[in-house]
Amino acid sequence: MTSVAVVGAGLVGCLAALGLSKKGYNVTLFELRDDPRKSINRELRSINLAVSDRGINALKYIDEELAQIVLSKVIPMTGRMIHDLDGNLQSQKYGLNGIEAINSIDRSYLNELLLNEVEKSGISLKFNHKLEKMDLKEQPKLIFQNNEEVSVDLIVGADGCFSKVRQNLQKFARMSYTQEFIDCAYLELSIPPGSNNDNKFLLDKNHLHIWPRDKFMLIALPNLDGSFTSTFFAPWDLIESLDDDESVLQFFKKYFKDAVGLIGEEKLLFAFKNHPKGKLLSLNCNPYHYQDKAIIIGDAAHSMVPFYGQGMNCGFEDVFVLLKLLESEPSVGDALSKYSSTRHEDLHAIIELAKENYKEMSHKVNSKLFLLKKQIDFMLTRILKDRWLPLYTMISFRSDISYSKAVKTHQRQNKILGYIQTAVVGLALLGAAKLFKSLRR
Amino acid sequence: MTSVAVVGAGLVGCLAALGLSKKGYNVTLFELRDDPRKSINRELRSINLAVSDRGINALKYIDEELAQIVLSKVIPMTGRMIHDLDGNLQSQKYGLNGIEAINSIDRSYLNELLLNEVEKSGISLKFNHKLEKMDLKEQPKLIFQNNEEVSVDLIVGADGCFSKVRQNLQKFARMSYTQEFIDCAYLELSIPPGSNNDNKFLLDKNHLHIWPRDKFMLIALPNLDGSFTSTFFAPWDLIESLDDDESVLQFFKKYFKDAVGLIGEEKLLFAFKNHPKGKLLSLNCNPYHYQDKAIIIGDAAHSMVPFYGQGMNCGFEDVFVLLKLLESEPSVGDALSKYSSTRHEDLHAIIELAKENYKEMSHKVNSKLFLLKKQIDFMLTRILKDRWLPLYTMISFRSDISYSKAVKTHQRQNKILGYIQTAVVGLALLGAAKLFKSLRR
Repeated sequence: MTSVAVVGAGLVGCLAALGLSKKGYNVTLFELRDDPRKSINRELRSINLAVSDRGINALKYIDEELAQIVLSKVIPMTGRMIHDLDGNLQSQKYGLNGIEAINSIDRSYLNELLLNEVEKSGISLKFNHKLEKMDLKEQPKLIFQNNEEVSVDLIVGADGCFSKVRQNLQKFARMSYTQEFIDCAYLELSIPPGSNNDNKFLLDKNHLHIWPRDKFMLIALPNLDGSFTSTFFAPWDLIESLDDDESVLQFFKKYFKDAVGLIGEEKLLFAFKNHPKGKLLSLNCNPYHYQDKAIIIGDAAHSMVPFYGQGMNCGFEDVFVLLKLLESEPSVGDALSKYSSTRHEDLHAIIELAKENYKEMSHKVNSKLFLLKKQIDFMLTRILKDRWLPLYTMISFRSDISYSKAVKTHQRQNKILGYIQTAVVGLALLGAAKLFKSLRR
Repeated sequence: MTSVAVVGAGLVGCLAALGLSKKGYNVTLFELRDDPRKSINRELRSINLAVSDRGINALKYIDEELAQIVLSKVIPMTGRMIHDLDGNLQSQKYGLNGIEAINSIDRSYLNELLLNEVEKSGISLKFNHKLEKMDLKEQPKLIFQNNEEVSVDLIVGADGCFSKVRQNLQKFARMSYTQEFIDCAYLELSIPPGSNNDNKFLLDKNHLHIWPRDKFMLIALPNLDGSFTSTFFAPWDLIESLDDDESVLQFFKKYFKDAVGLIGEEKLLFAFKNHPKGKLLSLNCNPYHYQDKAIIIGDAAHSMVPFYGQGMNCGFEDVFVLLKLLESEPSVGDALSKYSSTRHEDLHAIIELAKENYKEMSHKVNSKLFLLKKQIDFMLTRILKDRWLPLYTMISFRSDISYSKAVKTHQRQNKILGYIQTAVVGLALLGAAKLFKSLRR
C-alpha cells in the first residue's frame, strides 16, 4: 500500500488526507500546531469563508455525506448588500435566478469538522510536528524538529502560504516562484447577534455585506449564532494612520456610520488596539511537484487574495483534480507531472482574477455602468442560455468550467459586448442623422 | 561607532565589508563555509568573470590601489570571437574603437585577493558561521547554527542567490519576490595551456570565444596561466540526453569540432561524468531592506543569468550605490529606504537584459542582419558621439549611465532606427516607382 504523508492539517490538508485514504492510500497527517479543538485560542484574523460550487463538488466527490453535513452548517448568501455612505442598502444578486448562493462558514468550525472526520476514518493524525527538512534524493523522508524521521512513498504539502514543504521542494525541483504582497492590510471585526429570539441577525443574513469606499472597504459575513464576522480592508499607510481612538472613531463614523452602531464603539476600538493586522499575499509557482515523490497543493502552491472567495474552493478543487489524476494516470509520477502541467493555467487565472476583484468589490459595485453591464450580461444569459455566462457565475457556480476556460470565455464575451456596443452606437448615430435630415427638409 | 554584520564573504560581501570599514563602520564579516584559501576544493562549476566598467568604478571608489591590483591580474577581451561549424573564426569588437575591453578573471582568484584585503584592513572575519535566524524586532540580532548570537546595528546580506538573510528578511518586510529557473544547464570544461613558452594560449587570448549554435553554445574565457575556462550551455533535456561517452563525443565533434581538439576527448568525457550541472536562476525582489536594520545586496537581492557578464559588476555597483547613499542621506534608515526605491528599476532592467542576451550570444551573433545593425549603431555613434550609444557600450563601458537609463535610451534609439528604416524603404520605393514610370514612357 502506497504510504502518503500529508503535511498541514488545515482545510485542504484534511480534505486531501480524507480523499487519499478513501482511495486506498496509507495516510498520515502531520500538523505543526497543537490540536485546535483542544484550545480556545483564536488568532483573531480570520475572514469568513464562502463555500461555493468548486468546494462543494470536491467535498461531494470525496464524501457525499460529509458534503451534506457541511452544507447543513452554512448560511447561504444570494448576493451582495451594498451599504452606501448614508446607510442606504442595495441588494445585488450573484446569480441569474437570485437563488444561486455562496455559503458562509466559519473557518475554525469547518476545520474542526474535517479533523473529526479524519479521526473517524482511521487516518493517523500527528499534531505538534514541525517539519524541519525533507530529503527527496532516494525515498522521500521527512525530518521533524523533534528529530523524528518518517519515510513515505509520497509527500503532499498542504502547509499554507509559508509552506515548509515548498521551501524544501525548491531544493530539488527547479521551481519558478512569484510572491507579491498587496498594499492592503486587513483587520477582523465582529457584529454581535441581536436580542430578538426569532431573528438574531442584525443585518440581512442572506447577503455578503459590503461597504465599498474605493480605496478601502468593510465587509461582513453571517455566522450561525447570529453574529457577523466583519473585515476592514485598507492600504497599509491608511490603517497605520488610524493609531488613536479618536482617529479610528472619526474615520469609521464618517465612512461606516451604520456599521459603527452594530459593531459598537468600544469593541471597534478594542479590535484596532489588539487584533493583528493581516498581510495579503499573492503567490504562485511551477512546477508543483518533484518526480513521484512530492507535491504541494492549496495555499502552499498558490496563495491568493480573498476577493473572489475562491482560496479554499480552489484548494479543495486541487484535491479533486489530484485524486482524479491519480486514478486515471498509469503511475503516481505521471499523475503529479500532469497535475503540474495542466493545473498551472487554472491557478494562474484565479490568482489574477482574485487580485482584480478588489476593484470590483471596493469600487465598481458603486458604478451605474457596472450595474448596467451586469444586467446586459444576465439578459444575454437568459436568451443564449449556456452559451453566454457571466464570469462570476462560471467561477462560483460552475465547477464543470475550469478557471482558465472561464477567463477565456469571459474575454471572448467581452469582445462581443464591445461589438454590440459599437453596433448600437452606430445605429443610434445613423438614426440621428436620418432624423436630422428629415427635420431639415 | 555603528556596528555592521556583513553576511557572506563572496565577492560582493568582501567589497561591502571593505567599503563600510573605510567609511568608519565597525564591520564583522561572516561566512558559512571554511576559508577558501585553506583548501584546494574547487566546485567545478565556475564561469569566468568579466570585470567591466561598473565593477572597476566601484573598486576604485573604495580603494584605488586595490582596483589597480585587480586590473593587473585580468586579461582584457576586446571582442567576441565567433567559431562557426567549420572552425572559421570571426572577431566582433565590443567597442567602437576596438580597444574597449571587458576583463577576464578567475572567480576564486578574485575572491582570495579580496579576502586578503579584508584581513589586512583589520575587519573581523569569521568563517564556518552558518546563519540560522535573524531577529529584527528590536536591535538586529544574528543567531548562528553554533548557537552564537551577535547583536549589531545593521545587517548587510550578501549571501548569494539562496540567501538566508533574504529568507529571514521576508518574515519582517512585506517583500515581493520572483524567481525563475531558465531552461538551461551549464557545465564547466577547460582548455589547457599550450606548450609554446612565448604564447601559452591555444586560442586568441584577447577575445571571449563563442561557439553559437542557436539552442546551445560553448564559450571560453582566458586565464593568466594560458588555460581557458570553458562553459557549455544547453537546455536540460539536451544535456541530460548526453548520458554516455559515445553520444557526448558524437555531439561535440559535430558541433564543436575545433573545441574538442583543444579540450581533449578524455577530459571532455571526464567533465560530463563528474562535473556538476549548474542551474541558472533569475531572481529579484522588492524592497531590499527593512527599516534601518537590514539590507540585501548582490546575488542575494538579484541573481541574474550570466549572459551579459554583469552579475558581479552589478553587485559591486550595489555596494557603490549603498555607500554613496549612506554618505548623502541623513540617516541609515533613509539610505536603505532610498536604496530600495531607486535601485529597483536598475536591477530589474539588467536582470531582463541578461535573460535576453542569451539569444544574442547563442543565435543572433550568427546573423548578417545583426552585424549590419551593429555597424549602423557604431556609425551613428561615430557621427553623433555621446548622443548615440550602443546598448552594450552603455552597459559595459559607461558606469555613469544607470542600467535603466541605458535601456530607455536604447529603446528610444531603436525607435529612431525604425523610422530611418521606414524612410529608407519609402525613398527606395519612390525611386523604383519613378524608374518604372520613366521606363514605361
